[in-house]
Amino acid sequence: MLGNFTYCNPTRLYFGEDALENLGAELAKYGKNVLLVYGGGSIKKSGLYGQVTAILADCGKEVCEVPGVMPNPTVDKLYEGCRTARENRVDFILAVGGGSVCDYAKAVSVSAWCEEDPWDKYFLRMEDVDNRIIPVGCVLTMAGTGSEMNGGSVITNHASRLKIGHVFGDNVFPKFSILNPKLTYTLPKYQMAAGIYDIFNHITEQYFSGTDDNTSDYLAEGLMKSLIHSSRIAVQNPQDYEARSNIMWTAAWALNTLIAQGKRTDWMVHMIGQSVGAYTDATHGMTLSAVSMAYYRALLPHGLDKFRRFAVNVWGVDPAGGPAVEVAAEGLKRMEAWMRELGLVMNLRELGVTEDMLEGIADGVFPMDGGYKALSREEIVQLLRESL
Amino acid sequence: MLGNFTYCNPTRLYFGEDALENLGAELAKYGKNVLLVYGGGSIKKSGLYGQVTAILADCGKEVCEVPGVMPNPTVDKLYEGCRTARENRVDFILAVGGGSVCDYAKAVSVSAWCEEDPWDKYFLRMEDVDNRIIPVGCVLTMAGTGSEMNGGSVITNHASRLKIGHVFGDNVFPKFSILNPKLTYTLPKYQMAAGIYDIFNHITEQYFSGTDDNTSDYLAEGLMKSLIHSSRIAVQNPQDYEARSNIMWTAAWALNTLIAQGKRTDWMVHMIGQSVGAYTDATHGMTLSAVSMAYYRALLPHGLDKFRRFAVNVWGVDPAGGPAVEVAAEGLKRMEAWMRELGLVMNLRELGVTEDMLEGIADGVFPMDGGYKALSREEIVQLLRESL
Repeated sequence: MLGNFTYCNPTRLYFGEDALENLGAELAKYGKNVLLVYGGGSIKKSGLYGQVTAILADCGKEVCEVPGVMPNPTVDKLYEGCRTARENRVDFILAVGGGSVCDYAKAVSVSAWCEEDPWDKYFLRMEDVDNRIIPVGCVLTMAGTGSEMNGGSVITNHASRLKIGHVFGDNVFPKFSILNPKLTYTLPKYQMAAGIYDIFNHITEQYFSGTDDNTSDYLAEGLMKSLIHSSRIAVQNPQDYEARSNIMWTAAWALNTLIAQGKRTDWMVHMIGQSVGAYTDATHGMTLSAVSMAYYRALLPHGLDKFRRFAVNVWGVDPAGGPAVEVAAEGLKRMEAWMRELGLVMNLRELGVTEDMLEGIADGVFPMDGGYKALSREEIVQLLRESL
Repeated sequence: MLGNFTYCNPTRLYFGEDALENLGAELAKYGKNVLLVYGGGSIKKSGLYGQVTAILADCGKEVCEVPGVMPNPTVDKLYEGCRTARENRVDFILAVGGGSVCDYAKAVSVSAWCEEDPWDKYFLRMEDVDNRIIPVGCVLTMAGTGSEMNGGSVITNHASRLKIGHVFGDNVFPKFSILNPKLTYTLPKYQMAAGIYDIFNHITEQYFSGTDDNTSDYLAEGLMKSLIHSSRIAVQNPQDYEARSNIMWTAAWALNTLIAQGKRTDWMVHMIGQSVGAYTDATHGMTLSAVSMAYYRALLPHGLDKFRRFAVNVWGVDPAGGPAVEVAAEGLKRMEAWMRELGLVMNLRELGVTEDMLEGIADGVFPMDGGYKALSREEIVQLLRESL
């Protein structure tokens, strides 16, 4: 059944080769003091840093910076951003980078004026925001997380070996995001593939749940088909504008709340992948791909109808080709073949996981119960072992 | 190619059986003077009028009313609404009804403070809004037009026999819309079927254009499949909550700008249907169904690849079942069978059109060139004749 829900996504997206031209007009809506956050040196190498700072100067902004936002932003980095934002009385945070930089900007946005430790309040205790929120805008350089159009923010605490995501409300969504597919061209293939699988897994996390067939699931199938089609072109030719642009557009819709409306969702692959990330600091998308096949094969008997539908509607398996369980299994086989075609990491060992870590990783997994089967700790350890 | 675009849809949707509970909190955001607009007596019969006016009273609002908004709102009715809005210094317009009432509310919203004739400025000349806009909210009682989540407004001028839609920007979108699928239960089957076909045609108008296969087209296919599935259940059992709720949800996404992003669109069926409407005052969805088959059969050779894809992806036609033109034609055949199953009007005569009207109807058609073939006036007359 399509349950009750509220839908609102106020983020304004500027999409296309010339999207950056809109940055000035958007910045003009906010105060003078801007915090610019970004990752490593790639935006300086590409020239994007120079373009953005020139626009900021043209707009008469006072700019302070937090560079060096890492792929899995840490809680210590969050504290640094909060200090910088407070000391400079920041009116607006501009994130230039991939999903981690956007996630980080949102974390600073809600944490800068939080009166207690934001890690405790917003990540461990998952409370609602009741303090001042600094508005955020994004210039995106990588497609994957969907952070450009949602309230999600994932922060890693290496001391406690926890990687936790909080999905904030629409008052925390970026006010605008600038999506130029060409900015993703310079990304190494490994990162591009990881981003593609992150998108795909966002969709399956929301798709593999519920027995109903509401509109969300049909939209999810459309997004998956588009992504599979475009990803096959992009791995052959990363500079194919149409493929990269459709991947970028799909990423936003895969995780901007639309396809979760009115239905249950799963998110167990993300919970397991995030715990792997907390231990290894591995690329997020690859932590998901490494555990996915073991997870979905284990889940299949508990959600047979949906896995059969997935095989037929997404992978074009002939529905008359055999009993439901065979049709469904053929779908997962085709999914695995596509993952290998993308060059995804298909086992945990390649990410630096060793046998002695498995119990600890399992301890860091937040259990979810929206999918077809709630896993016990023992089942998670077993799944990790199969994924080694 | 996924072209450049800006996407923003700020409308907040409250969906579900209890959605009306959110009306008070939304109204509290706006000023004291509320203009309540609605259609005939159905909302009084159903009790909805009483519920809404009780909430308005609880919120301490001063309410003025424009009842009697007709299915194809006229320009004279628009003038009446503008006078009422100005005289009562209205701060907010609340539309309670179907798409026509929502369309009407938006027309009053932009026209009340327009210094010249709003018909000339906003409908004949299609200018951008440069005057004060009165914010609008909707309580929807019928699924179809998508007016609850977009800037569209269609107004009919019987004197000049023109029915014209203006798609306004996101500053005119409803601030919120309340979508309770149960409010659509009381709709006569004829109106329900007309609404369903309006939704479907919104999708095909955007789908049948362009040679690219961008994400929008995959999303469009998902929406069509969901709608076909749910509509078949709803015509058998109009009180099936899941079917009616998915139809209502699909209606919003069929025409809230998403599936048009980055691509060309057609809209010729709507242009022809609207001209039929201006002559006959027939139900909008039925004017579309009456001309659709003749139009799409004529269009097929000019957009063969897309019609073949439509057949395979939406109607499950076997792609190996024959040459492309046969596969494509089989798709249209299945679409026609589905339309007959819904009980749609499949010819113009049933809507009161006579041979002598055809030339005049053709004169009232605004020509579009985004589809697979731009039609000449003669071709439009011919198409109308085939649809008689």
